[in-house]
Amino acid sequence: MLILAGKPVVESLAPALEQQISAFKKASGRSPRLDVVLVGDDPASQIYVRNKHREATRLGISSQVHSFPSSADRLDVRALVERLNRDDGVDGILIQRPLPRSFSLSEVSQWVLPSKDVDAFHPELLGRLALGFPGLAPCTPQGILALLAHYKVEVAGKVACVVGRSPIVGKPLSYMLLNANASVIQCHSRTGKLESLTSQADLLFVAAGVPRLIGRQHVRPGAVVIDVGIHRMPDGGLGGDVRMDEISDLASAASPVPGGVGPLTIFMLMRNVVAAAQARLDTATGASVRHS
Amino acid sequence: MLILAGKPVVESLAPALEQQISAFKKASGRSPRLDVVLVGDDPASQIYVRNKHREATRLGISSQVHSFPSSADRLDVRALVERLNRDDGVDGILIQRPLPRSFSLSEVSQWVLPSKDVDAFHPELLGRLALGFPGLAPCTPQGILALLAHYKVEVAGKVACVVGRSPIVGKPLSYMLLNANASVIQCHSRTGKLESLTSQADLLFVAAGVPRLIGRQHVRPGAVVIDVGIHRMPDGGLGGDVRMDEISDLASAASPVPGGVGPLTIFMLMRNVVAAAQARLDTATGASVRHS
Repeated sequence: MLILAGKPVVESLAPALEQQISAFKKASGRSPRLDVVLVGDDPASQIYVRNKHREATRLGISSQVHSFPSSADRLDVRALVERLNRDDGVDGILIQRPLPRSFSLSEVSQWVLPSKDVDAFHPELLGRLALGFPGLAPCTPQGILALLAHYKVEVAGKVACVVGRSPIVGKPLSYMLLNANASVIQCHSRTGKLESLTSQADLLFVAAGVPRLIGRQHVRPGAVVIDVGIHRMPDGGLGGDVRMDEISDLASAASPVPGGVGPLTIFMLMRNVVAAAQARLDTATGASVRHS
Repeated sequence: MLILAGKPVVESLAPALEQQISAFKKASGRSPRLDVVLVGDDPASQIYVRNKHREATRLGISSQVHSFPSSADRLDVRALVERLNRDDGVDGILIQRPLPRSFSLSEVSQWVLPSKDVDAFHPELLGRLALGFPGLAPCTPQGILALLAHYKVEVAGKVACVVGRSPIVGKPLSYMLLNANASVIQCHSRTGKLESLTSQADLLFVAAGVPRLIGRQHVRPGAVVIDVGIHRMPDGGLGGDVRMDEISDLASAASPVPGGVGPLTIFMLMRNVVAAAQARLDTATGASVRHS
C-alpha cells in the first residue's frame, strides 16, 4: 500500500506560492495580510490560530489576531468583521471555529465578504464551487485534490465515495470530485448499510468525525483511501476515521492520520490569502488602468 | 407498478397557494408579480413563456413579459433586469433559457437579485440550498420532492441515485435529497458503468437529457423511478429518459413522461413568486413597524 503523505505535496507546491508572494510584494509594495478573529478560549482553537500565524509569518504573509472573550457580544464581533471587510489593507479574514453557542453559524458564515472569505464558509462561495465558477474554495478539500494530483491518482471516470457531509469538508469535496468528473456517492451518519456503498468506491474519502469508523469490510480491494478525520486517541496519540491497520494489504494507497492531509489544509489557507490579495490587486490595477 | 402522476399533486397543493395569494392581496393591496425576460424567438421558449403567463393569470398572479430580439445587446438586457431588481412592484424575475450564445450563463445567473430569483439560478441560492439555509429553491427539484411527499415515498435513510448534474435539476435535487437524509449517488455523462451505480438505488432520478437512456438493467427490483427527461420522440409524441415499458414489472412505482413531474415545475415557479412576494412584504412590514 502506497502512503499518500501530505508533507511532500506541500514541499512541491511551496516554491510557486513563495514566488507569487514575492511578485505580489513587488507589485503592491506590501505583504498579503490575513486577519484571524478568535472568540473564547478553546485550547485547540488557540493552537490552530498560533499555527496559522506561524505559517503565515514563515511565508511572508502578515497576520493579525483579534481576540474576544467567550462572553463577547456577537454584534461587537460582527462590527469588527465589517470593519475588516471595508479595510483595504486586509486581504483574508478567518473567523476561527468553534464559536460560542450564542453565535448562529448560518449568520456568521455570511459576515465575511466572499472576496475575503479564505475559509470559504459563505454560501455564495459554496454555490460558485458547485457550479464550477471562480471563487475561493475550502482549504481541506483543495488540499485533498492537490494530494491526489501529486500522487497521480486519477479522478475522472472513477467512483468516489465521501463519508461525511459537513459544510466545510464533505459537501465541497463532493462538488470538487464531481467537477473533476468522478461519480460521487455521498454518505453520512444516517446512511443505512454504509459498507454496501463505500465498497463501490475506487476512491474513498472519510470525513465523518468518528474515530476508526471505517474498517476492512468498507473498502474495495485496490481502492485509494483518504482519511480526513483527526482525533486524540485513548493512547494519547492522534488517529483518524480509518482503521489503517485493517486495510494496509487491501487498499492500493492511503493517506493516514497523522501524516496525511493535515499540512495541506493550512498551506491551502495561505494560498487562499495570496489568491484573495492578488485578485484585489488585479481589480485595483484594472480599475486604475481603465480610469487613466 | 404505481404511477406517480404530477397533476393530483398540483391539485392537492393548489388550494393552500390560492389562499396565500388572497391573503397577500388583502395585506398588500396588490397581486404578486412575475416578470419574464425573453430573448430571441426560440419556439419552445415562446410556448413555455406563454404557459407560465397563463398559469400566473389563472392563479391571480400578475405577469409581464419583456421580449428582446435574439440580436439584443446583453448590456440592454442586463439594464432591464437591474431596473426590475430595483422595482418595488416586481416580486419575481425569470430570464427564460436558452439564451443566445453571446450571453455567458455564469454572468447571467448573477443578474437577478437572490430575493427575486424565482428560477433560483443564482450561485448564492444554490449554496444556501446545499447548506439548508432558507432561500428560493429551483422549481423542478422542489416539484420532485413534493411528488415524493404526496405519494408517501420515504427518502430518509434511502439510497438515492441522481443521473444528471445540471445546475438547475441534478445538482439541487441531490442537495435536497441529501438534506432529507438520503445517501446520494450522483452520476452523469462521464460515469463509467452506469448500471452498477443506478442499480444500488432505492430511489432513481433520471435527468440526463438522453431519450430512453435507462432500461431494465439499470433498475433495482422494487425501486422508485422518477423520470425528469422530456423529449419529442420520433413518433411525434413526448417521452423521457426512461424506457418505462421495460421496467413496469420491476419498479414498485414510477413517475412517467408525460404525466409525471411536468405540471409540478410550473406550479413551484408560482409558489416561488408568492414566497418572494410574501418575504418582501414581511420585510417591508417589519421595517415600518420598527420605524413607527
